Amino acid sequence: MLGYQKVLAHLRRNKREHLKLLQRLVAQPSISAQNEGVRECAELLVNIMEGLGIPAQTYETEGHPVVYGEIGEGDFTVLFYGHYDVQPPEPLEAWDSPPFKPTVRKGRLYGRGTGDNKGQLLSHLLAVHSYLQVLGEIPIKIKFVFEGEEESGSPYLADFVSEHKELLQADLAYTSDGPLHESGAPAVYYGVRGMLGLEISLETASWDNHSGNKGGVIPNAAWELVKILSSMKDENGRVRVAGFYEQVREPSTKDLELIENLEYHPWQIAKNFGVKKIEMEKEDFYRRLTLEPTMSINGLTSGYQGKGTKTIIPARASAKLDCRLVADQDPEMVFAAIKHHVEKMNPDAEVVMQGYMHPSRTDPALPVSEKILKAAQTASGKKPVALPAMGGSLPDYVWTKILGVPSIIVPYANADEANHAPNENLDLECFYQGIEISARAMYELSKK
Amino acid sequence: MLGYQKVLAHLRRNKREHLKLLQRLVAQPSISAQNEGVRECAELLVNIMEGLGIPAQTYETEGHPVVYGEIGEGDFTVLFYGHYDVQPPEPLEAWDSPPFKPTVRKGRLYGRGTGDNKGQLLSHLLAVHSYLQVLGEIPIKIKFVFEGEEESGSPYLADFVSEHKELLQADLAYTSDGPLHESGAPAVYYGVRGMLGLEISLETASWDNHSGNKGGVIPNAAWELVKILSSMKDENGRVRVAGFYEQVREPSTKDLELIENLEYHPWQIAKNFGVKKIEMEKEDFYRRLTLEPTMSINGLTSGYQGKGTKTIIPARASAKLDCRLVADQDPEMVFAAIKHHVEKMNPDAEVVMQGYMHPSRTDPALPVSEKILKAAQTASGKKPVALPAMGGSLPDYVWTKILGVPSIIVPYANADEANHAPNENLDLECFYQGIEISARAMYELSKK
Repeated sequence: MLGYQKVLAHLRRNKREHLKLLQRLVAQPSISAQNEGVRECAELLVNIMEGLGIPAQTYETEGHPVVYGEIGEGDFTVLFYGHYDVQPPEPLEAWDSPPFKPTVRKGRLYGRGTGDNKGQLLSHLLAVHSYLQVLGEIPIKIKFVFEGEEESGSPYLADFVSEHKELLQADLAYTSDGPLHESGAPAVYYGVRGMLGLEISLETASWDNHSGNKGGVIPNAAWELVKILSSMKDENGRVRVAGFYEQVREPSTKDLELIENLEYHPWQIAKNFGVKKIEMEKEDFYRRLTLEPTMSINGLTSGYQGKGTKTIIPARASAKLDCRLVADQDPEMVFAAIKHHVEKMNPDAEVVMQGYMHPSRTDPALPVSEKILKAAQTASGKKPVALPAMGGSLPDYVWTKILGVPSIIVPYANADEANHAPNENLDLECFYQGIEISARAMYELSKK
Repeated sequence: MLGYQKVLAHLRRNKREHLKLLQRLVAQPSISAQNEGVRECAELLVNIMEGLGIPAQTYETEGHPVVYGEIGEGDFTVLFYGHYDVQPPEPLEAWDSPPFKPTVRKGRLYGRGTGDNKGQLLSHLLAVHSYLQVLGEIPIKIKFVFEGEEESGSPYLADFVSEHKELLQADLAYTSDGPLHESGAPAVYYGVRGMLGLEISLETASWDNHSGNKGGVIPNAAWELVKILSSMKDENGRVRVAGFYEQVREPSTKDLELIENLEYHPWQIAKNFGVKKIEMEKEDFYRRLTLEPTMSINGLTSGYQGKGTKTIIPARASAKLDCRLVADQDPEMVFAAIKHHVEKMNPDAEVVMQGYMHPSRTDPALPVSEKILKAAQTASGKKPVALPAMGGSLPDYVWTKILGVPSIIVPYANADEANHAPNENLDLECFYQGIEISARAMYELSKK
């Protein structure tokens, strides 16, 4: 404990240097979707790691390189995952300061990638650095995997993990990405929902016809699409595609206990989500958000979309959908079920997959989970909000399914980090607190 | 008959001059929607009419002027309706010759407004001119009403007719607009369907939410819209809005007789409409196209419409619809029924009217109808295709409902005139044939 207290003191003395290092990392663009600066950023990150005393190197993939590093010795190995690539900064004119010129205003650092995810991955590195500075060693074995295309859907991360299972073997995967709970308390997630993107499109004629001269005797692509879509859900919003729910895992007692322990303020949530009201009970709300799959239309297109009317019978219509999947749903099986349903409704409809990510779950009853909760609570002074899974998706399955290790997600950014949006920012208090959580987690995990 | 034969000979001798005059009229842009050249075109048209020996003048309306002329004496008065305004010519780059530089290629005159409607309204004027040249008089009384904003929905025509009922009093309204039957035979219509345009829109949240972080617990505007729309039709495409069909007039024996007499080649129709097949029986096909109302989606918009996926829960969704209405449906009553239905389905939905036009019907058993059919058949050498109504809409109700006179529609343009599209054209044989039909109709109508 004495050693850890010294590390903590060192961390607190070096805030200025930590901020400087983050600014250096953010100043390097690394936009994976636009292939801008990604390799340069990988090299900068290796450089920074080496400077902090952590041996590191890049690994080539079919896409952008993975930055890998490892350090320490001990019975317990934790693998920290993060990503050094960022979202495109557009629209540029909406930023109050340039996205790659990180600027401090009112206790926050503004810049693309500050919160998502450079500030968070750097927290782990800075915690290690303080251990090395103060104690000359760290109490556990640590591996770092920082990928360069999370914002593009992590297309080659699974391959990388499959090909380097021995190198990456660990007792726990630890991811800091996303925000703290809205209340400011730390959040801890034991999994993520998966994702399946698809598009349904229809062509009912070779061209848009005149709605008067042809109206009543030929099919309308927009109506046909509405017919297909409305067949896919019942009036309560439950998916009617045969087999859709078949592989959904029943919540465990521990899952339901986590939900039972949560605070619940539906009016506050409604305000944060921009909706009039939320009328569900707590268990229903959190089960739907974390333990149940969704089928969401994210885009509808047909016919005329300008002002006024254009009296046509649209020849084409399409709907983009995404499904959030939960353990143990298999995205390809779900896709096949949807495709089958749609084609049965209308043999002319085309269903195209736009990519997927597997869901992932880790048992919250795992002993190591208490250590992470303790680290988060001690460093933040607040009781963590622990949830069975995130509603969103991360490539967490590469750890739980491919590597076969438990995985816990502990986000460090402020709830209003505006990631993926203009004026992305990281509250510096969250940044410094993240470093302390990482340091404390290393300490807790080193204990027998 | 001798007099008419001389008129016919005169018409046939003067084709070159007729074409020149049409070119002059088409060369003057008159785009009502863009307010370009409309007044200049009205003045040019008055000028042309005076040059042909027909006293004419403009009448101001709240919109673009009406060109009015009258000539002749007799027991029977026919009112010819047409419009001198044209559709916008965009996209300009798709034209093979400039839209307002009328050009003859392979027996057709290309230019915006050639068929819709300048060539057709000019046919009546040129027929009168030949009577005047050959006989010094015409055998009936003729009135001309050429409006300047048909392509903008004829917003002030009803007012003009209401305010000038005495001036316009006639025994028959006669409109040449639209194309001949696909077979090349003349078409004769005893009415039109009306039109009601509306938009349904929904806002379920103040912003688009993340489909992972919020998915499952808040409404999705696209799904809510699909739910509303799917409630509006049954699985056979029949409208389920209470009251929608209430005012629909039962077809008369004569209506059904007209349909019974039509030829029907569903495979040919399918090809012309760009659809795979048409599987209805003849009566069903023509009843649906002319005697039954439609409810058509002409535009659907929600969420993300670019490439790939954007994992959002759309906050907004909208559908544009148009209904083709038949006698005796009242557009305002139909709109109220739809609005009531939608708001019952979802009290947050907004339903906005985008304008309407009343349906119109004339009794096909009317004695004068035989004279028009005879004129069309004699001048074209082909048996006219007579239909109870057009599938499309024209402001025909101003004659049948406001002025209270029967109205017959006899289009003169080729079926592939490409009106409202680039490379609009008028087949010169159709143009010359139209002049002969008008001349013959004047002759037939003059007979007791």
